[in-house]
Amino acid sequence: MLGKYLDEVRKKTPLVHNITNYVTVNDVANILLACGGSPIMSDEPADVEDITTICGGLNINIGTLNKRSIKGMKKAGRRAQELGHVILLDPVGAGASALRTNTAAELMDKIRFTVIRGNISEIKALSLGSGTTKGVDADIADAVTEENLDDAIRFVKEFASKTGAVVAVTGAIDLVADAERCFVIRNGRPEMGRITGTGCQLSGMMTAFVAASPGSALEAAAAAVCAMGLAGEIGFTHLAEYEGNSTYRNRIIDAIYHMDGACLDEGAKFEVR
Amino acid sequence: MLGKYLDEVRKKTPLVHNITNYVTVNDVANILLACGGSPIMSDEPADVEDITTICGGLNINIGTLNKRSIKGMKKAGRRAQELGHVILLDPVGAGASALRTNTAAELMDKIRFTVIRGNISEIKALSLGSGTTKGVDADIADAVTEENLDDAIRFVKEFASKTGAVVAVTGAIDLVADAERCFVIRNGRPEMGRITGTGCQLSGMMTAFVAASPGSALEAAAAAVCAMGLAGEIGFTHLAEYEGNSTYRNRIIDAIYHMDGACLDEGAKFEVR
Amino acid sequence: MLGKYLDEVRKKTPLVHNITNYVTVNDVANILLACGGSPIMSDEPADVEDITTICGGLNINIGTLNKRSIKGMKKAGRRAQELGHVILLDPVGAGASALRTNTAAELMDKIRFTVIRGNISEIKALSLGSGTTKGVDADIADAVTEENLDDAIRFVKEFASKTGAVVAVTGAIDLVADAERCFVIRNGRPEMGRITGTGCQLSGMMTAFVAASPGSALEAAAAAVCAMGLAGEIGFTHLAEYEGNSTYRNRIIDAIYHMDGACLDEGAKFEVR
Repeated sequence: MLGKYLDEVRKKTPLVHNITNYVTVNDVANILLACGGSPIMSDEPADVEDITTICGGLNINIGTLNKRSIKGMKKAGRRAQELGHVILLDPVGAGASALRTNTAAELMDKIRFTVIRGNISEIKALSLGSGTTKGVDADIADAVTEENLDDAIRFVKEFASKTGAVVAVTGAIDLVADAERCFVIRNGRPEMGRITGTGCQLSGMMTAFVAASPGSALEAAAAAVCAMGLAGEIGFTHLAEYEGNSTYRNRIIDAIYHMDGACLDEGAKFEVR
Repeated sequence: MLGKYLDEVRKKTPLVHNITNYVTVNDVANILLACGGSPIMSDEPADVEDITTICGGLNINIGTLNKRSIKGMKKAGRRAQELGHVILLDPVGAGASALRTNTAAELMDKIRFTVIRGNISEIKALSLGSGTTKGVDADIADAVTEENLDDAIRFVKEFASKTGAVVAVTGAIDLVADAERCFVIRNGRPEMGRITGTGCQLSGMMTAFVAASPGSALEAAAAAVCAMGLAGEIGFTHLAEYEGNSTYRNRIIDAIYHMDGACLDEGAKFEVR
Repeated sequence: MLGKYLDEVRKKTPLVHNITNYVTVNDVANILLACGGSPIMSDEPADVEDITTICGGLNINIGTLNKRSIKGMKKAGRRAQELGHVILLDPVGAGASALRTNTAAELMDKIRFTVIRGNISEIKALSLGSGTTKGVDADIADAVTEENLDDAIRFVKEFASKTGAVVAVTGAIDLVADAERCFVIRNGRPEMGRITGTGCQLSGMMTAFVAASPGSALEAAAAAVCAMGLAGEIGFTHLAEYEGNSTYRNRIIDAIYHMDGACLDEGAKFEVR
């Protein structure tokens, strides 16, 4: 069911504009190429409007933000929105500093994001930080578990409803929801948390998935989450016992490179609630 | 014939100053070390003159440019030129945004580049963007093929003549030309296009090759192109079936690390036209 | 004896704030995760104080510095010092440009570093650049060898005494000293010098080691140096003959990932002088 969204990426080769942190940017570019997309990076305010114009999707990641790149995020977001492009927000570190929390809130005020993807702490920070938390229950724990799953699903759906975005909360259990439906995804491995930037990579790849299937943003976003988790499972089987997080990073991108829709359909582990 | 230019790099260990994008910079540094050069990165206008002074070559790559780094490019270029250093321009994304096209044009106005290296679209954008396209035929297709090869060779030679630089156009068929002679190079593999930054890596390595043999800029630049393509061929033979673009990136740099002049001479596939 | 400092990192998972260059930042993040620490990167002056507040250690690396990030270094350093955090300086390129030398000197004037880690040229530049070289003999050669070892040890101890920091000078022979004692470390392999950023990685990891054992800064810093060198030895044994510096980089991080205190104790090669 979800495999076709990967196949669409390979068919359409969406060009994705990334304004992203310099820590994991190389891996974001390589995973975009691996899944069949095409990456371009630009954060200079005087450059971003032209660049985003020729793209199909915009991935805004606020890790290692600075005042110049924040301007670039706003200009690019405004232009992408005018053009009806898919726009994703990855609020890296929201809740960890006032600048990050406020920047994410400001971006959400100015730009209607197609997708917002983060970990549960970041999404909670957004739900509080925007100042209009009415109706959104952010009193859930700092990890989505089988025990608090019902509450977490309700929280994510409500945040999706409030923002009008597809919301993806990734962790041991991943949730991808709009106001009505929530994909509960159980792909992936805990060792992925020992690699820097698997979240950033997922955000880049998710932008390509949604840009290739903009009419099915929820399903396409869920497909990207399943693909990333499944790649983590496949990549892990190819690790020698002496190989660790650095090689594992390569194996995951490599697994995306070789994945097709049928493979994704076979390996995706999700339910819709 | 071209192998000796690699051997010269290993003999002289040229220090290369790179003002380059943050997407692929780590791979640029590692391939420079792999080929026998030594990398240093600096883009702050207040830092670049001192840094470029102690180097033998300057590699200017305009991917992820910003207003500060553009100033750094100009200052570094001016100083490197005063010192008679080898200077390379990699016009990443010229043609994709006004800022990139104009920055490349301005740099070409102010600095006499030893080498200009890009894909055919970028080089075409430069030939138009400089405003004085008289005598330069940019009406060639967006890829160099066996069918349009004669036209492409003429275009590259004319652009080399106009700019006074060695011009390297890389793609499925690579062309490296001055006004008189054009190396037509058929090394490499199509899968290299699925790795981010093989072009950036080549530009860094090419700067080292030319800095080590400044009296033979055309041949040294051609040798770097052959080395990169041959590394792509060698690296590919070491890929397991489950390995993809991320591991392939490592294998290419690894292949450069082990390549010597004799190996390059044996594997280089080129003709001079 | 030193293995326990690695075990402490895994027990405490220190969060390390890195203001570091964009060349090697991804490897710094991955090695921090490999050793059991947790990395966060931020260089924007408006962001660094909040970020460093939630961390246990601050790693300041001046490679690819710019005027904005220098402000970030100063603000972060001041705050980290107020909070009694472990602070490390990696003076990349001190001596190579006035901006780098002066920035390192200014930082040392304003901030009391827990550890200073660099190569011998950089540390010599610092000892001269601070303007008060009285009592510090910087007339040693550009590499620490068995021949000049006594002089080098005296130099490093004197610089440690003058700065109040633990000083780590890394090279073929590594020295880690305070005013009284110097660890002379003979782990590692020469091929590590062909990888970009092994020094930066060590600085990041060392910050985690010292942050996990702040009462034993000298021993913890020495343990980090031994761990890095030992990882270089272990990683090298897993290289196929066609693998070079790019894969070696991964193998070293992978070796840290699998290392524990017992392994480090068995492999560490040092004497205290």
